[in-house]
Amino acid sequence: MEYIKVPHLIEEKSFEIITEELGDKTFPEEIGKIVKRIIHTTADFQYADITVISPGAIESAKEALRRGANIVTDTQMAKAGINKTKLGELGGEVHCYIGDADVAKKAKEKGITRAMVSMEKAIEDKKNEIFVIGNAPTALFELKRYIEEGKIRPALVVGVPVGFVGAAESKEEFESMNVPYIITRGRKGGSTVGAAIINALLYML
Amino acid sequence: MEYIKVPHLIEEKSFEIITEELGDKTFPEEIGKIVKRIIHTTADFQYADITVISPGAIESAKEALRRGANIVTDTQMAKAGINKTKLGELGGEVHCYIGDADVAKKAKEKGITRAMVSMEKAIEDKKNEIFVIGNAPTALFELKRYIEEGKIRPALVVGVPVGFVGAAESKEEFESMNVPYIITRGRKGGSTVGAAIINALLYML
Repeated sequence: MEYIKVPHLIEEKSFEIITEELGDKTFPEEIGKIVKRIIHTTADFQYADITVISPGAIESAKEALRRGANIVTDTQMAKAGINKTKLGELGGEVHCYIGDADVAKKAKEKGITRAMVSMEKAIEDKKNEIFVIGNAPTALFELKRYIEEGKIRPALVVGVPVGFVGAAESKEEFESMNVPYIITRGRKGGSTVGAAIINALLYML
Repeated sequence: MEYIKVPHLIEEKSFEIITEELGDKTFPEEIGKIVKRIIHTTADFQYADITVISPGAIESAKEALRRGANIVTDTQMAKAGINKTKLGELGGEVHCYIGDADVAKKAKEKGITRAMVSMEKAIEDKKNEIFVIGNAPTALFELKRYIEEGKIRPALVVGVPVGFVGAAESKEEFESMNVPYIITRGRKGGSTVGAAIINALLYML
C-alpha cells in the first residue's frame, strides 16, 4: 500500500483534516493552534469543547518561554513529549522530580502522592515558571494551595490531569484562579495533552 | 477541599468507577484488565469498543516478558510511560531508537520518517520481541512488511498509532496479520495507550 512517508507532509495533512472536520467551530488563531494540536495528539474532537484558556495565558507563557523559563511536569511522559530542542534554544529546561529518591522517601513517610512532593520540590527553583500537570490531580491541588499562599506566581499552569478520582474536581476548582492557565474540563487530559499544549506554544515562537 | 491522597486508593477507586460505568459491557478477566487500564489512562470509554486483542496475544506477551524479552517503542513518551522497574525485575529493557543520531541521518537521507528507520534498527537485536507503536503509522507499516518478509516474528505488536493520516489504515491492515497483536481500531491511540497496555500485562505477572 502507498502511504505518506514524509514527516512534515503528514503533519500538514493532519491539521488540514482537523480544521475541515471542526467545520463551523473556529477559534482565534493562537487558541486554534493549541486546540488543534491537542486533537492531533488524541484524535479526540471533544477537546475542542473542553479546553479552556484563561485570558492572557498564551501571551504570559510565550513571554516566559522567550526569556528561558523552565517547565516542570508531573510525569516523565509529559517531559519526554515536550520538544526540548526548541525549548533549549530559548534557554529553558524541563524538570520532572517524580522519580527523585528524596521525593519518593518523603511521599512514603507522609503517605501522600509523589506528585504532591514533587511540586513542593519544584517551587524551590524560581526558574520553574511553567507547570504541566498531566496526571495527578493531587499535584494540581497542591499548586493551587501554593498560589493561594502567595508562594508562587506561575507564568502558566497547564492543568490537564486525566482520570476518575479528583481530576475533574481539581480542574474545576482551578478555573477560579487568577493565574494564567490552560485546562481541560472534566475527566479527560493526560501527559500527551500537556506536552501537546507546550509544543503548540513553542512552535508559535 | 478534602481529596484522596493515597496512591493505591486512588487507583483502586478509579478501576471501581470504570467497571461500574462499563455496566453490562464485561470482558474475560485479562482482557478486562487491559481495556480498563487504557480507559484509566485516557478517561475515554470508546476504547472498550475499539480495542482488539488477537487470540493468544496476552499469553504470548506474558511468556516473552517472563523470559526477559525487550520492548521497542516508537516514541520516548511510550518508553517513559512503561514501568521499567517491573520490567527490569523480569530481565527486560525498553529501547527507543527514534532519537539516535544514525537514525536521524538515515531518515533525512531517504526522506522517510525516523520512526521507519528506528524499526529497521530495532529488528537487528533479537531480544527485541515486543513492539509498541503509539505514534507512527509508518512504523506499523514497516513492521508489517518485516513480518511478511519473515525477518521478524514478534511475541507481541501493540499497534496503537494515533492520528489522521494513515493511523486507521495501518491498524486495519495489521488486523489480518497472523501474529500476536493488540490494536485500537480507527484514529485513536497514542503513546499513553501503548504504555498502559504494556503495564497492564506487566501487572499480570
